[in-house]
Amino acid sequence: MKLVIGNKNYSSWSLRPWLLLRAHDIDFEEIMIQLATAATASEIDQYNSAGKVPVLLDQGLTVWDSLAICEYVSEHYLAGKGWPADPARRAEARACSAEMHAGFASLREAMPMNCRASGRRVLISDALARDIERIDALWSQMLQRHGGPWLFGEFSIADCMFAPVVFRFSTYAVDISSLSRTYMDTALAHPAMLDWLSQARAEAATIDRSEVGR
Amino acid sequence: MKLVIGNKNYSSWSLRPWLLLRAHDIDFEEIMIQLATAATASEIDQYNSAGKVPVLLDQGLTVWDSLAICEYVSEHYLAGKGWPADPARRAEARACSAEMHAGFASLREAMPMNCRASGRRVLISDALARDIERIDALWSQMLQRHGGPWLFGEFSIADCMFAPVVFRFSTYAVDISSLSRTYMDTALAHPAMLDWLSQARAEAATIDRSEVGR
Repeated sequence: MKLVIGNKNYSSWSLRPWLLLRAHDIDFEEIMIQLATAATASEIDQYNSAGKVPVLLDQGLTVWDSLAICEYVSEHYLAGKGWPADPARRAEARACSAEMHAGFASLREAMPMNCRASGRRVLISDALARDIERIDALWSQMLQRHGGPWLFGEFSIADCMFAPVVFRFSTYAVDISSLSRTYMDTALAHPAMLDWLSQARAEAATIDRSEVGR
Repeated sequence: MKLVIGNKNYSSWSLRPWLLLRAHDIDFEEIMIQLATAATASEIDQYNSAGKVPVLLDQGLTVWDSLAICEYVSEHYLAGKGWPADPARRAEARACSAEMHAGFASLREAMPMNCRASGRRVLISDALARDIERIDALWSQMLQRHGGPWLFGEFSIADCMFAPVVFRFSTYAVDISSLSRTYMDTALAHPAMLDWLSQARAEAATIDRSEVGR
């Protein structure tokens, strides 16, 4: 199995399935494509015509999009255990994941993932404040309802979907509730998250448009 | 089971789970909230704090987001048959659905769903042209690979996810390949799509910002 990803420091979508695979000790080969270069588009196109990373290649099958890859990995390698076992909790975990997958445009725009950076500050527009409040409320609600330490009790795909936000909130020193802060600490201490971050720090490339808030 | 939706003429996200439920003759009560009024936000907030439609209410459970609702319905009411039975085809159907779920911002922005309108024309920017080309290529590829008449052979959640695009391409008379056109004809002739359209035509409300291209 091969996972095509972008720069670890910047590629928020790549982090999600990578984290799921690593958290469950599933073997895979990593293919890294430098984002934001003249060759990026043609390099991605070798693997998939959607023009984006991540892409999973497994036994002749090509699966693209972070959420769809997580669903595939859960079905094929985890006997469904990527999601909570309880059907109601699973439905809620999929709802949170899908909300993250399609939403929060202001957050993505204003606070690009830049995991090795810290102490960055950006202007908090009303739209950005609403995105942050919603995520804080959602995390708090799920942690209270399911008892933590992960959003749905045990580690699940929902945590993978929000992992890039954990790095964002850390980089830009976002002010959130103490309960959500506890969740961020849990996520940032996960061995696979630490590993991703250490590899992001080792990358030489810099993408100017993602270096904001200095 | 209750499904909270927005105006049928405009609410592209509402159409998706509605179509899945109706295509499979699953009973549900419909709760319609007028979008783009002063009361919209507080009305949606009665059902879910994500602030968006659709929302599914079933046996004390609240499931939000079009894709997560479709996954829930497939699991709980269709024994998984919302997706193709073949695992590889299912992975591909989820990838296409997820790509639609998070992508095509230019298409959404420039061509709001307005299903009862026809003969509208909007300026085709480069970004919009790329969105249209990608969808045309994706549809053609899936129809060729799986033999049609639906994207993955039989009707699936992937068709629900793209149903709003079918209405958009129809409203704005978008130029696409003959194979994709055949697919649009199939979708537009589905009894549930005809029913949705006829109910959209019966709605009195108009949302100005979605009335473009006259």
